[in-house]
Amino acid sequence: MTGWLVVAGLGPGSEALVTPEVSAALAEATDIVGYIPYVARVAARPGLRLHPSDNRVEVERATAALEMAAAGRRVVVVSSGDPGVFAMASALFEALESRPDCHALEIRILPGITAMLAAAAAAGAPLGHDFCAINLSDNLKPWALIERRLRLAAEADLAMAFYNPRSKSRPEGFDKVLQILRDACGGERLITFARAVSTPDQRIETVTLAEARPEMADMRTVVLLGNSATRRVGPWVYTPRFAG
Amino acid sequence: MTGWLVVAGLGPGSEALVTPEVSAALAEATDIVGYIPYVARVAARPGLRLHPSDNRVEVERATAALEMAAAGRRVVVVSSGDPGVFAMASALFEALESRPDCHALEIRILPGITAMLAAAAAAGAPLGHDFCAINLSDNLKPWALIERRLRLAAEADLAMAFYNPRSKSRPEGFDKVLQILRDACGGERLITFARAVSTPDQRIETVTLAEARPEMADMRTVVLLGNSATRRVGPWVYTPRFAG
Repeated sequence: MTGWLVVAGLGPGSEALVTPEVSAALAEATDIVGYIPYVARVAARPGLRLHPSDNRVEVERATAALEMAAAGRRVVVVSSGDPGVFAMASALFEALESRPDCHALEIRILPGITAMLAAAAAAGAPLGHDFCAINLSDNLKPWALIERRLRLAAEADLAMAFYNPRSKSRPEGFDKVLQILRDACGGERLITFARAVSTPDQRIETVTLAEARPEMADMRTVVLLGNSATRRVGPWVYTPRFAG
Repeated sequence: MTGWLVVAGLGPGSEALVTPEVSAALAEATDIVGYIPYVARVAARPGLRLHPSDNRVEVERATAALEMAAAGRRVVVVSSGDPGVFAMASALFEALESRPDCHALEIRILPGITAMLAAAAAAGAPLGHDFCAINLSDNLKPWALIERRLRLAAEADLAMAFYNPRSKSRPEGFDKVLQILRDACGGERLITFARAVSTPDQRIETVTLAEARPEMADMRTVVLLGNSATRRVGPWVYTPRFAG
């Protein structure tokens, strides 16, 4: 048996947002590797081995997946959303750097619907013009770099999508983010809190920056900030295609 | 019959990247509205009316779709990629602003795989850390704003995805973009040209900014620029999850 390794995006939650390409890879797999709640989304079947693991062991998980594929298994590493957006694809390549013996393996990255796009669709089209995606987890980079990026993105008048806005270990961080954004963009700027997008728990709330409170976001929330032209129409919020 | 309007993302080209949610909407539709090549991707069937239209008539097309839905038709406006990323969703809401009589219509935006995410997956994970998406078409904004956003995004050390890098009407624009990026990021920065992603014509090419030439991009190309940490591993290019 020739092994291969796929890193697949399961989308934000709904099975109706899993691409046929990803479903086909899951159907051919012998092994499913990933963070516990994502592996739980894959239906068990005879002969399929599930390898759920805890958060924050991404490189170890990727290395184990490489080794299984090198041994001839057909391995799918599952990610939520899109694997290339703050998810498992980069961790896989970090692991691959330490394993030149695995460079000839068949590896494929299968894209998925990332949370910000599902959230934007549920709210309207707040990312309808130039935008950026920023991960607010300060596990990944120093706070000073987060602040610098927020200020430069505001100066560039980009719409913004924020992943991991708030965690138990640093509940005050998102409050600081909102203060910086109010300072840089003004209190009237529209901000959308999108929780558990595409699941039965979905909740979409758009307010102004002046009205925004840190507790409007939790670990299942993606946050979208409009640019200076973002506005409401009926129940929707959108960013026009034209600027300047 | 109660009409509705859906704006659906068909993804970058492959049918394996069309979500089940979008396929279900297409199956229930009475009318398909969109730019000619996107409508051509929808299979004809008895009773399904196809309304292909030319480029650059987005608001007229959206208004016609609203009117059909208001008259009781089940209308899908098709977009390539994701409808909320430089595509038809914003045009729909622009049209809706002029039609308050349509604000109570059932409208849904269905996300899709946008070109930059399919391109990133084909290349590895070049958007694996904070990034921005910039539309280089200067039909939509003045050149000075494009230049300003490029310089600020480079200063923020964001990875970047560029849509519409090159068109017949302004072939010199992308040459200027490459000059600005070389000036701001240096010649060693990695840049990926991804043409016709997910189709049989797919071609992925990663070079340094010093090696990049404007003719590497055409109208079917999305361009991805790494951040200062983006690197190669084996045949892949990726951006590490950690920074600073």
